[in-house]
Amino acid sequence: MNEFEIIQSYFHKSTYDDTNNVVIGVGDDAAIVSLNSDEHLVVCMDTLVSGVHFPEATRPEYVAYKALAVNLSDIAAMGAIPRWITLSITYPEQNEFWFKAFAKGFYSLANIHSLSLIGGDLSRGPLSVTVQVQGVLNKYRQPLSRAGAQVGDDIYISGELGAAAYALKSILEKEQWEAASDGELARLNRPEARVKLGQALSGIANSCIDISDGLNADLTHILNASGVGAELNLSLLPMSTSLKKIDINSAYELAMTGGDDYELCFTLPSDINNEQLAELNAICSISHIGKIISDKGLVLKDENNHKVILSKMSYRHF
Amino acid sequence: MNEFEIIQSYFHKSTYDDTNNVVIGVGDDAAIVSLNSDEHLVVCMDTLVSGVHFPEATRPEYVAYKALAVNLSDIAAMGAIPRWITLSITYPEQNEFWFKAFAKGFYSLANIHSLSLIGGDLSRGPLSVTVQVQGVLNKYRQPLSRAGAQVGDDIYISGELGAAAYALKSILEKEQWEAASDGELARLNRPEARVKLGQALSGIANSCIDISDGLNADLTHILNASGVGAELNLSLLPMSTSLKKIDINSAYELAMTGGDDYELCFTLPSDINNEQLAELNAICSISHIGKIISDKGLVLKDENNHKVILSKMSYRHF
Repeated sequence: MNEFEIIQSYFHKSTYDDTNNVVIGVGDDAAIVSLNSDEHLVVCMDTLVSGVHFPEATRPEYVAYKALAVNLSDIAAMGAIPRWITLSITYPEQNEFWFKAFAKGFYSLANIHSLSLIGGDLSRGPLSVTVQVQGVLNKYRQPLSRAGAQVGDDIYISGELGAAAYALKSILEKEQWEAASDGELARLNRPEARVKLGQALSGIANSCIDISDGLNADLTHILNASGVGAELNLSLLPMSTSLKKIDINSAYELAMTGGDDYELCFTLPSDINNEQLAELNAICSISHIGKIISDKGLVLKDENNHKVILSKMSYRHF
Repeated sequence: MNEFEIIQSYFHKSTYDDTNNVVIGVGDDAAIVSLNSDEHLVVCMDTLVSGVHFPEATRPEYVAYKALAVNLSDIAAMGAIPRWITLSITYPEQNEFWFKAFAKGFYSLANIHSLSLIGGDLSRGPLSVTVQVQGVLNKYRQPLSRAGAQVGDDIYISGELGAAAYALKSILEKEQWEAASDGELARLNRPEARVKLGQALSGIANSCIDISDGLNADLTHILNASGVGAELNLSLLPMSTSLKKIDINSAYELAMTGGDDYELCFTLPSDINNEQLAELNAICSISHIGKIISDKGLVLKDENNHKVILSKMSYRHF
């Protein structure tokens, strides 16, 4: 199969063209879509490189799922509704089975969010996948960004931390997939972007970011963009049960710096009422982990209120 | 320099944020832009892989320029106005000088078209560059697409064919850049996307495509999408002067199948008036090369009206 046949067979039509206002989709020089007049366009793009962002032996379904999920996580962090995808795959050979499996994983997530694949590219080369997601946002609503954290805000995160990093560490150490449980592997390969939570936070949270490089690095982005500091209590971190298998300091380190969590970290004004918190918790569990303070920098404390210094600051993809 | 420092130093701000309605640009989880209510969004994405789409020793300025130009060419083929860019670079090492030169080449073209870079990604891995361009199109105007060619339409192309393919062939054969002239290298490394011509064709042309894989392959896309055929006279092809250095059959073959031309191929209704043609020619030279016919397939004829068969049908990137 050549490039055009692969696109025609596996990537040509999306189920949701009509609902997503697609005027021209896959198969022309460019795609055309329309927005409603009260919508902003929200745009993100992430590349996953084989051997860098995922182990080389990762199944194509998971590569596809994750490449889309990490972008949905960015859209979630803006409080937007994802709509359209462009996809560029660079792959070493014309392997029909690989593309078939990739498309299966890709659409399994795209269909959950009623997304339309509208264009992209297919090239020969070392395996990497670039996904670009476009969403919409009500233009009369204050967008969620990294820059709005206020002194006195409470800091929250969704879900749990560390399972994906623990899985990756175990796999790489033992050089086999079986070193991680199915649940841990799912967190690594099929992260759940917090799209609904992000939308619910829009207009409520003062700031928001998704945790891809580890809470330490990503919360620091909020602090720098907002010109504030933060104090976290490590004992409040919602740690994955996987981390109970290792000593507490290693667990904190993985939870803070392991990366690949794709949870949302956000700050709420301290006068948020219990009803609003309950509504957020009904979407997915959220945990209060600390406070925004005026002194710059990120202060970590343990359960005895002692300061903690992490030896490894964050996972870096570059 | 790490990922964030490279982005901060070389890719952070665009000069044209204000004019392009950028609400949130580079540096958050996603970018936010706004469209006017009478505009459609036009979206394309292309990846260039080192050693596949350009020789490995290509200067970073040229890699950047070309990666953007090939996308602008797709936007041009839709008759749209380019506005925003997302950019993902995968690069083997943290080489500050490479990124500085890349950014220079990138902005040299982005600034010509007043484009805003609004987001993207930077990863470690084998060199490849994915550019995604978003443009706008008046929603009350019929979009230019591949699918509208009508029997009786005249087929035109802009500019000249074959210089880029000739340059690449010479360089690869002799294994040195000096094998091609400066003008030929410019056609290979700094193609000029026909953005203004595309906009002028919107509402006039029945179909349009940009020539990236060679006229033979790309015109065939128009024919297939439109359910028609075509007859071309090779003696009418606007051949680059470079092709006069080789025998006529090799020249035809490079012009038809060499690729990397980034000219527009379009069809105009036969009753187009001379004034309209003069207006198009004032933007850039256009040449009448054949006619759309009802019999499917592409028929090539020489100056004696004899049928010609090409041995090589098109350049394939995959």
